[in-house]
Amino acid sequence: MEILKKCAESLITLRQKQPLIHHITNYVTVNDCANIVLAVGASPVMADDSKEVEDIVSLAQALVINMGTLNQRTVESMLKAGKRANELKIPVIFDPVGMGASSFRNETAKKIIAGVKLAVIRGNMSEIKLIAGQDVKIKGVDSLASEEDGTQVAQGLARKLKTVVAITGKTDIISDGTRTCYINNGHERLSHVTGTGCMATSLIGSFCGAVDDYYLASLSGVMAMGLAGELASESLSPAEGIGTFRIRLFDNISNLSQEMILKRGRVSYE
Amino acid sequence: MEILKKCAESLITLRQKQPLIHHITNYVTVNDCANIVLAVGASPVMADDSKEVEDIVSLAQALVINMGTLNQRTVESMLKAGKRANELKIPVIFDPVGMGASSFRNETAKKIIAGVKLAVIRGNMSEIKLIAGQDVKIKGVDSLASEEDGTQVAQGLARKLKTVVAITGKTDIISDGTRTCYINNGHERLSHVTGTGCMATSLIGSFCGAVDDYYLASLSGVMAMGLAGELASESLSPAEGIGTFRIRLFDNISNLSQEMILKRGRVSYE
Amino acid sequence: MEILKKCAESLITLRQKQPLIHHITNYVTVNDCANIVLAVGASPVMADDSKEVEDIVSLAQALVINMGTLNQRTVESMLKAGKRANELKIPVIFDPVGMGASSFRNETAKKIIAGVKLAVIRGNMSEIKLIAGQDVKIKGVDSLASEEDGTQVAQGLARKLKTVVAITGKTDIISDGTRTCYINNGHERLSHVTGTGCMATSLIGSFCGAVDDYYLASLSGVMAMGLAGELASESLSPAEGIGTFRIRLFDNISNLSQEMILKRGRVSYE
Repeated sequence: MEILKKCAESLITLRQKQPLIHHITNYVTVNDCANIVLAVGASPVMADDSKEVEDIVSLAQALVINMGTLNQRTVESMLKAGKRANELKIPVIFDPVGMGASSFRNETAKKIIAGVKLAVIRGNMSEIKLIAGQDVKIKGVDSLASEEDGTQVAQGLARKLKTVVAITGKTDIISDGTRTCYINNGHERLSHVTGTGCMATSLIGSFCGAVDDYYLASLSGVMAMGLAGELASESLSPAEGIGTFRIRLFDNISNLSQEMILKRGRVSYE
Repeated sequence: MEILKKCAESLITLRQKQPLIHHITNYVTVNDCANIVLAVGASPVMADDSKEVEDIVSLAQALVINMGTLNQRTVESMLKAGKRANELKIPVIFDPVGMGASSFRNETAKKIIAGVKLAVIRGNMSEIKLIAGQDVKIKGVDSLASEEDGTQVAQGLARKLKTVVAITGKTDIISDGTRTCYINNGHERLSHVTGTGCMATSLIGSFCGAVDDYYLASLSGVMAMGLAGELASESLSPAEGIGTFRIRLFDNISNLSQEMILKRGRVSYE
Repeated sequence: MEILKKCAESLITLRQKQPLIHHITNYVTVNDCANIVLAVGASPVMADDSKEVEDIVSLAQALVINMGTLNQRTVESMLKAGKRANELKIPVIFDPVGMGASSFRNETAKKIIAGVKLAVIRGNMSEIKLIAGQDVKIKGVDSLASEEDGTQVAQGLARKLKTVVAITGKTDIISDGTRTCYINNGHERLSHVTGTGCMATSLIGSFCGAVDDYYLASLSGVMAMGLAGELASESLSPAEGIGTFRIRLFDNISNLSQEMILKRGRVSYE
């Protein structure tokens, strides 16, 4: 399958280029994001003070903005770093964690979308629907939305913002407005570990720092996370649980190979 | 034993209800707290900005306030969220991490106790004694207090504040002022991993979000942590150490069953 | 070898004294630092608010200042804690993470060096060269500098600041200006996990809290990290990767013995 070959090649490119990925992110999953970026072969730098984010992003090949544990101090940093990244043609990946959970998050997401040209937006179904202006009943940072009309939402938002939209869930949906695909890798256990969404975004950021086609980069990042999840789950013995599963995610990302992508990647089209 | 049956049932209730547990907590152990909440079957949301904590807590079934890495920015958030939780009859669980280590912590704890009705306070012996107004020699965030007079302290404080008090240590003491019990699960290794106290508090919060009897919820949460600790410790091979032990805590919480509680739970009364 | 005996003895001293190590550090690797300090046998306390750092450091036997995720709020805390530590003759260990990546970091490092007497500075080659006033091409928080002239840099900086300088890399260089040695433990995988530098600094801090010779303490801390890295790496099966490697670092620090240091420690002199 042509697209799997391209994913596999993008992994090799990433490992050759070792792009530096600047994160302005939350303090819950920041260690996981740094380690997943290292595991896939890129290099992380986490920095969020408004006095330095423009310096830092200038050294980077991609910028990840993650809205978890949002605070007033870092909103300005997100906007400054995002604008500087735009000037330097560095791709910006946005993860609207907890969209809908508070007015503060909703307003911040609006500011970021209005002020920064985004290469990719990754979220779960409810977060993306809310970004697209639809009504969704939310529960904390978790989604209650159905997946049925996901394709329309992804395509519509991608066209409107001229960005790539990645909706992750049981079936992941990736669209740049023209091209749309579905990924059927992953495992339900991924939803029982904090940060797997954030890590998927950081993986997308890692691929965006290495390849110019952000649709392909998003597909590669989301698939990497899915493959790691299913391999980690298959490896568990009955006595093992969610702690060991989480550690094996990193094992499987660091051991991810072209062969694994070609053999187990499951991409489909409408 | 009747109480073990109730603990086992509360685990099932928790997993059915999947309560959302809002945390305002420290950046050292926040990832562990989120993952332990997920492992036991609840859902975590970490948010600490004063602009959003009232929105977030309104979505939650319990609020955990943890004083580790306390800072001036979040003290206001703790008070705002706590007061809103009180209005909404959402239980508030307080962990006075490092009580006694600085005037700032002592004063903040006083403000929280004065301004927020607490459902549960969990700490080690020295933290709870200091909350109760007794003199204790402290060493950083660790306890140097003896356990001898713990029962009196727990009962007295529980009555005074009309709350449940959980003192964790070699023997855990839980009291609501009327009922008092002792838990003899756990393992000494739990004191060699950061965050096991914080995680116990998050587990109590998870149970408080699912069952109305906060004394039972506290007992269930503390016992879950103890069982995970002893099972994790028993599973270690000689080459394994504190890193593997820590991961197995999560394994054993995610695999925790009614049977395990009934078989290994060790509760006693005076 | 005499020096290895001293390292082995310093481990025993550390475990007897269980010093309290105050950290003002970053939110990426803070949990790892706390756990590595516990694993080696010391006790961590993480606190960064300017209202309490002087109280906290007064309880401690060493202070670690780590510049990762630097922010304006904590710069003042670093200076206040450092000055109080100096008054109390508590050793201060400085890790200039990301030196060179922004003007903000460069200026903060200058302020810390000007305002606080440091017992040890630990960094990678480029960070230390930049601290010493040399020009280095940097890439995020990673080094691009060669190791050839490391000895001169370490010795010169140690003499200038009357401190111990520890440069970690393939070969680690430790110097107090008079004594200089090289450590050849460790494994390349250590560079594929975030926080191994921070953890080395925290281990140095742990030893500095227990023994008066900070050159020996630095050597012991860096060697402990190296031994843990090579033992962790040797233990991996083909299916295991960077996640399991990371956990085994903690296992091997908690299981570290005098025998292991004497058997595998590799120290050399010019």
